[in-house]
Amino acid sequence: MPSTAMTDSTDLAISFADVAAAAGRIAGVAHRTPVLTSATADALTGGRLLFKCENFQRTGAFKIRGAYNAIAQFTDAQRAAGVVAYSSGNHAQAIALAARLLGVKATIVMPMDAPAAKLEATRGYGGEVVLYDRYAEPPDAAVARVLDQRGGTYIPPFDHPHVMAGQGTLAKELIEEAGPLDLLVVPTSGGGLLSGCAVAAKTLSPGCRVVGIEPEAGNDAQQSLRSGSIVRIEPPKTIADGAQSRNVGQLTFPVMQRLVDDIDTVSDAQLVDAIRFFASRMKMLVEPTGCLAAAAVLSGTLDVRGLRVGVVVTGGNVDLARFATLVQPVAPAA
Amino acid sequence: MPSTAMTDSTDLAISFADVAAAAGRIAGVAHRTPVLTSATADALTGGRLLFKCENFQRTGAFKIRGAYNAIAQFTDAQRAAGVVAYSSGNHAQAIALAARLLGVKATIVMPMDAPAAKLEATRGYGGEVVLYDRYAEPPDAAVARVLDQRGGTYIPPFDHPHVMAGQGTLAKELIEEAGPLDLLVVPTSGGGLLSGCAVAAKTLSPGCRVVGIEPEAGNDAQQSLRSGSIVRIEPPKTIADGAQSRNVGQLTFPVMQRLVDDIDTVSDAQLVDAIRFFASRMKMLVEPTGCLAAAAVLSGTLDVRGLRVGVVVTGGNVDLARFATLVQPVAPAA
Repeated sequence: MPSTAMTDSTDLAISFADVAAAAGRIAGVAHRTPVLTSATADALTGGRLLFKCENFQRTGAFKIRGAYNAIAQFTDAQRAAGVVAYSSGNHAQAIALAARLLGVKATIVMPMDAPAAKLEATRGYGGEVVLYDRYAEPPDAAVARVLDQRGGTYIPPFDHPHVMAGQGTLAKELIEEAGPLDLLVVPTSGGGLLSGCAVAAKTLSPGCRVVGIEPEAGNDAQQSLRSGSIVRIEPPKTIADGAQSRNVGQLTFPVMQRLVDDIDTVSDAQLVDAIRFFASRMKMLVEPTGCLAAAAVLSGTLDVRGLRVGVVVTGGNVDLARFATLVQPVAPAA
Repeated sequence: MPSTAMTDSTDLAISFADVAAAAGRIAGVAHRTPVLTSATADALTGGRLLFKCENFQRTGAFKIRGAYNAIAQFTDAQRAAGVVAYSSGNHAQAIALAARLLGVKATIVMPMDAPAAKLEATRGYGGEVVLYDRYAEPPDAAVARVLDQRGGTYIPPFDHPHVMAGQGTLAKELIEEAGPLDLLVVPTSGGGLLSGCAVAAKTLSPGCRVVGIEPEAGNDAQQSLRSGSIVRIEPPKTIADGAQSRNVGQLTFPVMQRLVDDIDTVSDAQLVDAIRFFASRMKMLVEPTGCLAAAAVLSGTLDVRGLRVGVVVTGGNVDLARFATLVQPVAPAA
């Protein structure tokens, strides 16, 4: 269990200085998203909840922070050769937009059966999409083939120091605006956001506990943290489609071991309850993955009575038709 | 056509000093709601749009500003006797919450066929609901009966100087945060919000044009402003259920004549388009009435090319099932 801040250790992939430098790079590019509160949520949980709303971020999710921080540090040669990413989700759009803003060509490798809306969104931000058959080859092989044929610099979705430092700016902004926290709760998949935010939180609010939340169907981060080595699982079946990573990263895991206090899980049903709470009470659309932290707090999985709690809301990219289905009142049993 | 700020005139119901005093009263009670931007909306319209998001306000709408400002100025005798309001919408919840926060008893007159959810919400904020049969008597008569039987001070939804001044704090906050505006666009029903915001805008950003937007099915404010006297209409049929007033107020109209540059209208179809835009692009729920100003800008009814435009989003209180229906993609014709 981590007890004190040790974010200046040189053996970790990032330090707080990297997060602070990232904040300077993304200033004026990424939105400083609002921190919203809800008297109803506070009454329900007994805590003081401070929701950091990255559903209002550019591209609809926090990923632009890390993507921009990474591409902004390219050398001239790297800028000329372009950036390559693999993603069927928010990282793709973030890389495409960050690259366009920096005048860099972006190639995004996506499965050929990805939803048309996601392909369109990525192209809409200026990215060139290269499709691959995910039944014929793993994504790594498709990315390697693209890099081999076209060159360019690959930016992974989480296991990269510049991506991790960029995501950490979220917690830096939250604490600067809302003040010191007792607890910071963060949606968790590969650990890029969690590790970056842990570095920022333990530096700016040293007594703050940091807890990651992942879907109970895919608790590899929890298993990894508790066992002390990276556990790899089959792709989990969950509505949290942004938290289906099979394992945490080689760079993110040591930061998590040092600075993250615990990992908890929530069920898909708890995620749907949180989606409905956000829609009906806080008037906002949050994607299932974006509800992970809030679901843990609102459901009582985490006891937050008497605490000042930062709750990270990571994104709002949910198809409207699907959202409409999720928030429809449940029909009473016949 | 108004050309210069004349907000210190003593013949109007409110001055900027009243708005500033209201801002002091509501500080720490009402949220300072975020001002959100959208690169997509800017690209679509050619303007720089600054959305003041009162859907994130307490009770889900701006009405708490005026309600709290009014009840906070009660004498001790008035506080002891309680407040009475008539509303089937956001004003009811605002009065109920403001009264509870100030330790004042609230009686809300509502039609007996009002949606159960609205009755519940009003009671949830601590208001006592008195039902009346709207087919048997007009609301004025029901309110008069309640006042006769119980005493108390009646606070109308818009035609009251303290309500008008309270609503004006919205434009004050917006301009303080976002800077001077070329144009401020405001949803309009009885004119309480529009008149308060016009007073604030013409004082803080003297060159700013102020335009009210009402449903085209009920353009009484437009007719009134253009004809020079208050026009009364039948209750309009529109999905903008918060803009179904039959006429502007005796106090709001002179302010509108002096400080409002124009009134425009939008159709229900344009409101639905705006609801979908807010949901898909800006990840937020806005009620139909709350979309009036945005619909005028996004549809091109108002030309905002090259302008810095404040767009007031008044509220987000839309039933989830209804919202789900509104944002469902339209089925293609068979």
